[in-house]
Amino acid sequence: MQDQSTAEPNSADLDGADNAYALDRVATDAILNAVELGDKAALVALLDPLHSADIADFLEQISGSERSDLLRLWGTEIDGEVLSELDENLRVDVIEDLPADVMAEALKDLESDDVVDLIEDLEVPEQARVLDALEDAERVAVEQALQYPEETAGRLMQRELVMSPAHWSVGNAIDYLRGATDLPDRFYDVVIVDPKLQPIGKVALSALMSSPRDVMLANIMDGNFQIIPAMQSQEDVAYAFNQYHMVSAPVIDELGRLVGVITIDDAMDVLDEEAEEDLKLLAGVGDESLTDTVLDTTRQRFPWLAVNLITAIVASIVIAQFSGVIEAIVALAVLMPIVASMGGNAATQTMTVAVRALATKDLTSSNAFRIIRREVGVGLLNGLVFAVIIGIVGLIWFGSPMLGVVLGMAMVVNLLVAGMAGILIPIILDKLKIDPALASGAFVTTVTDVVGFFAFLGLAAILLL
Amino acid sequence: MQDQSTAEPNSADLDGADNAYALDRVATDAILNAVELGDKAALVALLDPLHSADIADFLEQISGSERSDLLRLWGTEIDGEVLSELDENLRVDVIEDLPADVMAEALKDLESDDVVDLIEDLEVPEQARVLDALEDAERVAVEQALQYPEETAGRLMQRELVMSPAHWSVGNAIDYLRGATDLPDRFYDVVIVDPKLQPIGKVALSALMSSPRDVMLANIMDGNFQIIPAMQSQEDVAYAFNQYHMVSAPVIDELGRLVGVITIDDAMDVLDEEAEEDLKLLAGVGDESLTDTVLDTTRQRFPWLAVNLITAIVASIVIAQFSGVIEAIVALAVLMPIVASMGGNAATQTMTVAVRALATKDLTSSNAFRIIRREVGVGLLNGLVFAVIIGIVGLIWFGSPMLGVVLGMAMVVNLLVAGMAGILIPIILDKLKIDPALASGAFVTTVTDVVGFFAFLGLAAILLL
Repeated sequence: MQDQSTAEPNSADLDGADNAYALDRVATDAILNAVELGDKAALVALLDPLHSADIADFLEQISGSERSDLLRLWGTEIDGEVLSELDENLRVDVIEDLPADVMAEALKDLESDDVVDLIEDLEVPEQARVLDALEDAERVAVEQALQYPEETAGRLMQRELVMSPAHWSVGNAIDYLRGATDLPDRFYDVVIVDPKLQPIGKVALSALMSSPRDVMLANIMDGNFQIIPAMQSQEDVAYAFNQYHMVSAPVIDELGRLVGVITIDDAMDVLDEEAEEDLKLLAGVGDESLTDTVLDTTRQRFPWLAVNLITAIVASIVIAQFSGVIEAIVALAVLMPIVASMGGNAATQTMTVAVRALATKDLTSSNAFRIIRREVGVGLLNGLVFAVIIGIVGLIWFGSPMLGVVLGMAMVVNLLVAGMAGILIPIILDKLKIDPALASGAFVTTVTDVVGFFAFLGLAAILLL
Repeated sequence: MQDQSTAEPNSADLDGADNAYALDRVATDAILNAVELGDKAALVALLDPLHSADIADFLEQISGSERSDLLRLWGTEIDGEVLSELDENLRVDVIEDLPADVMAEALKDLESDDVVDLIEDLEVPEQARVLDALEDAERVAVEQALQYPEETAGRLMQRELVMSPAHWSVGNAIDYLRGATDLPDRFYDVVIVDPKLQPIGKVALSALMSSPRDVMLANIMDGNFQIIPAMQSQEDVAYAFNQYHMVSAPVIDELGRLVGVITIDDAMDVLDEEAEEDLKLLAGVGDESLTDTVLDTTRQRFPWLAVNLITAIVASIVIAQFSGVIEAIVALAVLMPIVASMGGNAATQTMTVAVRALATKDLTSSNAFRIIRREVGVGLLNGLVFAVIIGIVGLIWFGSPMLGVVLGMAMVVNLLVAGMAGILIPIILDKLKIDPALASGAFVTTVTDVVGFFAFLGLAAILLL
């Protein structure tokens, strides 16, 4: 009832097979075949049993022309849920192409939070077109949500919720629920409010369910619960749901009045999005998606590569200072990337741990000093071990004990610096309110490249010439 | 009731402040002060209002000696939930130090899935000690769950669930729930089973709640729902919860019989863990945690650095082949890291997008060919743009047009290869059933380093000598 789901319980996957939850080739070929034949009845029959999230994934995976053909043929049968499951970048294009009547039909059964999610990436004229397609009450709810800044709890919450005064009994609540016609599609708690509409407690449906009719809600309510301010960042909302294992939480406005509810599915989406964002930022990838064109993707990745080019040129300038040494001993040119590369890797390790720990609020002012000390220790220890290894490699390869010593010393210096840069740069960026995942990569690599080349070639200039 | 939560609704955070949900300095100092004074009453009073997840975070953030002192002082008051919230690596140490009576007391109010999660990382003798501390019924449930392989649905599920036959009415279900004494702490659905105990439907509590007493469950049940096989990987379980917005799902054994239920909080944990794992693997960091010592951390990171050392040496061997060219034109040594570094970065971009898309099942056989073609296009396009830029840099810096041409050509080749390696290597590893995040980094960097140095120095040998 509450849950749209795929056609059949997936009991065929009893072995936990690798392709659990993926549409198989036969199904996708059948759908594309129906589109090619223009057979609307067959298309609807094939799509109808699928979960909207799977249809959205399928739309993302086929080519642009196949997608247009499918959407045109599907027409007014298109499900609003599918639009709301689509990847943002693609959704904007799809919505622009939808005729007004198809759009109005599709939006009819979406909750207000899904409509907000769907509308917020559109251009203003497109937004107006979608708002016009909504019924009055829903339009007002959506417009109110859009007043809140992007990526806040106010955008994430749904207006549809179940609340009750504290003086109701279990029986009152059940009778109300049985009589109500505008209940949310899913709800897990009844929010107990005072006369000023401020939430004072929460009764889980399982508690309501298992209590006799004459028990007062005030006696079974949980008064010790999280309340989300509408202006809170969505990242913090996701953190709270994950940290406190919540399934839904009331949202309040600046006066403390109940204005909505956030449910776990939206928080889980955000958690997943934020993890993806950190992963991509660390690798120098922006907000691109798989459906982007070659040109869009190239444009998205260009700035990151341009920053890297500048840092690489800085490293080259350092090398250029030692042209004379390299001319005298060409083995230095052969070996110098090793020290830089090891430093870059060690720094990336430390930086990734730091960025993740900052995101999960595990790295705080209580333990920052201890973690910095640890990373310096790790850098030193690994530096010493690899100094011995690379020293021996240098000695055997080029027959020069002193070259081995230079390599080893440069390795210790660079791994030590890598550990320090890898932990300090993310912490400093975080203090400056800059997303540590955003800029750490470029800074950290520059430091380890410059230090690596400088230490190795500088020591060589002193000890080998 | 159902929900343990922090002391007070966090209405102080109305501005969505940056430190939402972090324990403040005053609170942490007060706790450590109570520990130092050995004031157990004060400690209990300070910890009691905190959510167990926050206490666990606090324990992770203080030093080892502060932690031992705190746990000793806290003694039998210690909450099992706190143990289950602790980071795995730390938890093993903490549990080993707990006296038997403290352990027995702490485990009393945990659900079977939490006990399983707690026990599975322990050594066998420690496991036996924890099992002995359990009540009989719970011990059997835990032992059964441990029969399933690690990281499967069987380990994740809880045994405590609510089920009903299809011939019950809403009234029957409510009367049963009101009379039952062994209900799970939280539940969101009643699972409808046939006489063979096979799940045939699910009734959300919100549907049960809003239906008259005489309605049959069979008429309001959702027959179109996800069933999780106990052997399914936890990664797929988390995917299903996220993809289909589920809050709970029944788990079946190989005969299709209902054996447990997985709830969203466990799935969200797994989703978060898997994202962290991919992030760390891509950066060459294993399963380390912030509380690990210098020695443990060094040991964890060593193998990844050792692999990187080998790939760096391979790149050096390539450079060594061109010693003569470098001796003749030392500018080559200055410029060669630029081409390699750009290739490494471009490949990391593509690889990260590919690894993430494979994890979210967005990169499938339907679109693999299209995505490969796109990445090659992006590599070529960015290669051409950066070829022009770096060509001009080379020309201006060293006054040699031909050097600029060599740099530009090497850049195109390496960015093209970077795009191909970045997409093909993860896809191939995935086909070979190797986690693409695990090995992509080392492979991909080797390819771009080798190709970068070889193309630049090789072209230089042909065109400049």
